[in-house]
Amino acid sequence: MGDTDVASVPDSHRHILEGKGFAHVATLGPRGEPRCSPMWYEWDGTHVLISHTTRRKKYRDLERDPRVALSIRDPEDDYRYVEIRGTARIHDDPGAALIHRLAKKYEGVKRYQGDLEGRITIRVTPERVITYG
Amino acid sequence: MGDTDVASVPDSHRHILEGKGFAHVATLGPRGEPRCSPMWYEWDGTHVLISHTTRRKKYRDLERDPRVALSIRDPEDDYRYVEIRGTARIHDDPGAALIHRLAKKYEGVKRYQGDLEGRITIRVTPERVITYG
Repeated sequence: MGDTDVASVPDSHRHILEGKGFAHVATLGPRGEPRCSPMWYEWDGTHVLISHTTRRKKYRDLERDPRVALSIRDPEDDYRYVEIRGTARIHDDPGAALIHRLAKKYEGVKRYQGDLEGRITIRVTPERVITYG
Repeated sequence: MGDTDVASVPDSHRHILEGKGFAHVATLGPRGEPRCSPMWYEWDGTHVLISHTTRRKKYRDLERDPRVALSIRDPEDDYRYVEIRGTARIHDDPGAALIHRLAKKYEGVKRYQGDLEGRITIRVTPERVITYG
């Protein structure tokens, strides 16, 4: 998919992506079964960026099948949410820069205090954006 | 799967299921791709019950492939959640009883004011329960 095919988020729901809700991220397990868990994310205006490590299952899921969906609720409005469906690309993040930015966003701290080893960035390109509310 | 194979939720995380968080429900689209959206749910002590209608996509997804995953965050603790993976069975709900109970749970009203036509109950039997925090 070229960059011209990136789905955009309507103005009405952009604040959700710019906010501090958690993204519930659905990937596919080895038998094509769905998995879902809440994660921190960063929105760069076009893509959803998620920090992860190479030792965890979601990484292996996405290496196997890069299709992903995620839903984020509006923390200010129970009946508003955005769902993004797209494709993930994995990028190295040797300095773990993203997880430090996410720790600042979600916890207000300068540096992430957890696991820094094998950090990678999951970069989700939206192919379809569904909004509700 | 017989009832003896139902996965149970540990005591430490049962309050999340008994609470009022939203379940972010992941299903599979026609090409096996993940989809994810937040939904009201009821916990009966063993299964997750979701009200839906026969005219919506998640219903068709589950008719095609009943595998489902859902994650629910603890509204009181940002870093605690439960994920349930399992199989969905669809049951008719001609009286729309479940959606009225859900409207009471989430909105404190006696009757759901939205769409009642074609209401069904999605009953998720947990086969694997993952807890975090």
